Amino acid sequence: MSLLVIGTVAFDAIETPFGKTDKIVGGAATYASLAASYFYTKTKIVAVVGDDFPTADIQIFKNRGINVEGLQIKEGEKSFFWSGKYHNDMNSRDTLITELNVLANFDPVIPPSYQNCDYLMLGNLTPQIQKTVINRLQKRPKLIVMDTMNFWMDIALADLLETIKLVDVLAINDAEARQLSGEYSLVKAANKILTMGPKYLIIKKGEHGALLFFEDKIFAAPALPLADVFDPTGAGDCFAGGFIGYLAQVGTINFNNMKNAIIFGSALASLCVEKFGTERIKNLSQAEITERVQQFVKLSSFSL
Amino acid sequence: MSLLVIGTVAFDAIETPFGKTDKIVGGAATYASLAASYFYTKTKIVAVVGDDFPTADIQIFKNRGINVEGLQIKEGEKSFFWSGKYHNDMNSRDTLITELNVLANFDPVIPPSYQNCDYLMLGNLTPQIQKTVINRLQKRPKLIVMDTMNFWMDIALADLLETIKLVDVLAINDAEARQLSGEYSLVKAANKILTMGPKYLIIKKGEHGALLFFEDKIFAAPALPLADVFDPTGAGDCFAGGFIGYLAQVGTINFNNMKNAIIFGSALASLCVEKFGTERIKNLSQAEITERVQQFVKLSSFSL
Repeated sequence: MSLLVIGTVAFDAIETPFGKTDKIVGGAATYASLAASYFYTKTKIVAVVGDDFPTADIQIFKNRGINVEGLQIKEGEKSFFWSGKYHNDMNSRDTLITELNVLANFDPVIPPSYQNCDYLMLGNLTPQIQKTVINRLQKRPKLIVMDTMNFWMDIALADLLETIKLVDVLAINDAEARQLSGEYSLVKAANKILTMGPKYLIIKKGEHGALLFFEDKIFAAPALPLADVFDPTGAGDCFAGGFIGYLAQVGTINFNNMKNAIIFGSALASLCVEKFGTERIKNLSQAEITERVQQFVKLSSFSL
Repeated sequence: MSLLVIGTVAFDAIETPFGKTDKIVGGAATYASLAASYFYTKTKIVAVVGDDFPTADIQIFKNRGINVEGLQIKEGEKSFFWSGKYHNDMNSRDTLITELNVLANFDPVIPPSYQNCDYLMLGNLTPQIQKTVINRLQKRPKLIVMDTMNFWMDIALADLLETIKLVDVLAINDAEARQLSGEYSLVKAANKILTMGPKYLIIKKGEHGALLFFEDKIFAAPALPLADVFDPTGAGDCFAGGFIGYLAQVGTINFNNMKNAIIFGSALASLCVEKFGTERIKNLSQAEITERVQQFVKLSSFSL
């Protein structure tokens, strides 16, 4: 019984209207595994960094009980580095620097102790690598959740279509759902995407919440309106990590648990954006998470 | 005990990706009063048309039991006419024609039988006229709901600020809330606007639903994802009409009833857009409304 998270572990340099960071720890696998660790204690990562990645930063994972046996450290190479600047609306950003470094030749190695995992989170990466990870698992996990982005739809659509055939849940944003399906209506887009492989589709809408599609059912989760969003980096990854972490905790996959998982994922995402980078998400208390989830309950409940 | 709806009764010519209409009946007061009439039988309108407005079209109101004593018919003048074309995304539109006609000198007359109303819906109109209506009522209604738009913020901000001081509920969209407050965060925008007069603020987000702000509380209502939106015209007015009509029916103004009112308003709006103009909204069954409201319940409910 374990949850495998694959994705980037990287350095980010972020500028928002609230401030600017030097190189800090980031990456999809970082945020997703940290978020998942609050729900499920057997979380393990598969990722790659260079020898410039400080031991102290690996401690962030260890502090949360995350298994880092699958974190490759490449001697003489540098870690993936991304730098971006968010605009005033915090919904759009410019990428200033992307240095692939170790990611250029990433060959994901699954340690023997990682085999027989039940839950697999495919964080945003090339769809080819995501597929390789699935193929290298001796037993198909009970649940495979895949995150991806428009970038791969632009440059690796064939690989992307191959990979999404293999997953249970696909999580993309509304623009990406429209791009992937060629449909403007999200209902039509979802119906089309649900014929491409995934049984569940999550459409993330940022400050407008998220939609979950399953068969002919739809669930709409709100986002928590926040006075200040300090840094949106990692919000989508925390959402995905909280989502699969919650499902791993409850252990049963059905529409009701998926709905709750979306609320827990949304709660983690809303906490993440309150500080820069992983600052908030690396050290949460269960009480903070419970309180935040209760805010979501209050936010969306009504009784006729 | 009655509900007064003030606003435009007009001709619209609409083009959407699904088709094109000739001049059909439209206007904020038309949509809002029709929507309200499904919840509250004592709905009355104050509006003005020219003598080009066919008696058969006035019958649309009478069929729904709406009192039209306050509908002025100006001999020798023409009704307000708006023509617009929606883009493929249905969220943006171009105004092709605006002919103010009778609206240019609209002086709202409140028939004596309309006095002592309990509920007042100020549909989108010049804020000066909205204020005049409030002043011409001998007794302040129990609840005043005001709809407005960015156009009045651009050209009549001082009047707008005067009028919103007098109302209980303001309903605007997210871009308008940002414009009115000068704040990007909707939480900060709402906090500022709630110091300008209204006790309740509704921020309409179209396909993303609506937010209700009251004191330090927030309620997020989803919009129903639809496969086809035929014609978005009147959706906001149906929302407002359904909202105040429901509150008039229950008779008690509190946060819980406001939340339900938003769900009922959203249900009416989602029905409205399924056909052109007033076609769908002028002839609904209670069963259709109940079923639609149940779809909203299913859409947003989860149990932890």
